[in-house]
Amino acid sequence: MAKKPLILVTNDDGITAPGIRKLIEVMNTIGEVVVVAPDSPQSGMGHAITIDSMLTCDKIKVEEGEQTEYKCSGTPADCVKIAIREVLDRKPDICVSGINHGSNSSINVIYSGTMSAAIEAGIEGIPAIGFSLLDYSWNANFDVLKEEIKKITLNVLENGLPEGVVLNVNFPKSEGAFAGIKVCRQAKGNWIEDFDKRVNPIGKEYYWLSGRYELMDKGEDTDEWALAHNYISVVPTQFDLTAHHFIQKLNNWEL
Amino acid sequence: MAKKPLILVTNDDGITAPGIRKLIEVMNTIGEVVVVAPDSPQSGMGHAITIDSMLTCDKIKVEEGEQTEYKCSGTPADCVKIAIREVLDRKPDICVSGINHGSNSSINVIYSGTMSAAIEAGIEGIPAIGFSLLDYSWNANFDVLKEEIKKITLNVLENGLPEGVVLNVNFPKSEGAFAGIKVCRQAKGNWIEDFDKRVNPIGKEYYWLSGRYELMDKGEDTDEWALAHNYISVVPTQFDLTAHHFIQKLNNWEL
Repeated sequence: MAKKPLILVTNDDGITAPGIRKLIEVMNTIGEVVVVAPDSPQSGMGHAITIDSMLTCDKIKVEEGEQTEYKCSGTPADCVKIAIREVLDRKPDICVSGINHGSNSSINVIYSGTMSAAIEAGIEGIPAIGFSLLDYSWNANFDVLKEEIKKITLNVLENGLPEGVVLNVNFPKSEGAFAGIKVCRQAKGNWIEDFDKRVNPIGKEYYWLSGRYELMDKGEDTDEWALAHNYISVVPTQFDLTAHHFIQKLNNWEL
Repeated sequence: MAKKPLILVTNDDGITAPGIRKLIEVMNTIGEVVVVAPDSPQSGMGHAITIDSMLTCDKIKVEEGEQTEYKCSGTPADCVKIAIREVLDRKPDICVSGINHGSNSSINVIYSGTMSAAIEAGIEGIPAIGFSLLDYSWNANFDVLKEEIKKITLNVLENGLPEGVVLNVNFPKSEGAFAGIKVCRQAKGNWIEDFDKRVNPIGKEYYWLSGRYELMDKGEDTDEWALAHNYISVVPTQFDLTAHHFIQKLNNWEL
């Protein structure tokens, strides 16, 4: 690439999260960086967009560096939309989202704000990657991911991605001694919720959502297998949700 | 089916919306109905879940009828989770979501709270259908959909759905003279946002998200084609987002 690529950076943990700060640091070594990220944490927002209230999007400087930064009151998907339509004067060459504090492997991709931002960029025809680390700690060690993130990003800039495909990259919790990078499929798995039922001071019941993840997939080609074996997982992810394999059968129903 | 099927009903427009009231009316003619639906509108919530705040779920009776009803403070996906884990004493035979006031065809499926509820049920291994009508009006004519909704629901109860597949059903705005039911794929299309930029009384800028849908797909096998030709569209929809077709190629990258 002759010209410096324009890189849009966003996330779902909010613009001040250590994960996005590290991602910005890496992207500053690759191209011209514009950050448009939520002003507050948006985990679990899935592909929510804001249609019932207004949005704000304000220039800000969170940290030193060559990046330009904007904080937005909306969801991760809102951030990408407003970046493309209002903030940037040309289409970015790539959009990177993350680094998420926690996993977006397996079924988590469905609930993920990080991945919804990448998917929103993908819908706009922009090559996009979501990065996540399997460590929910605010002080997780993101430094050990820098080299791998740069390599994957440069690969996408070099090779592009087919229409309708974005990458979902997850890093195992590790001190950097990764077994390698594995291209995977999304593992079949599910959350077994265990709602924590409580009673408030005036006697009314309420709940906290909690639960544990259950893997239902013994395949060795899944993201869960890769991560459990200290590999970085890369799942090509699409937003055509059509279950093409079922169309033939469905056509024979008595509808 | 010898026993009356247990039917979980939810939506994203809120428990008092005319769309869900009509859906409940139809389901009462088929089985034992339990409603767990949001206490306020949740359009555009995508697959959001509530992890940063508490949830309430309270028994309520919105209208006469044989159904049991609960209003929940969470998103559509939360409603399905709490219904399965806390409200119902057995796994429902089917989950129906809607009738949504507005379209969930094409890329709208990604932003849809209605479909996220159906997908959440699908993740739990429950056959599920999202129903939507291409009419945003609160007073849309849902009566003309009753027969078709019943037919589709009975078909799913009879035939089941394969693991990992739910149905996305959209009705054209029509007075009931449908051309028929068409099994379709999700059309390629996108929203071209046009943010409405305003200035508040103290001089600060803010935005309203708005825009128009652009179809980028000339196929005659898409939901958009079907709806434009007065057909009811049925898209089998999956939540394994893996872009399997790109795995081979990605394996040849220098990662």
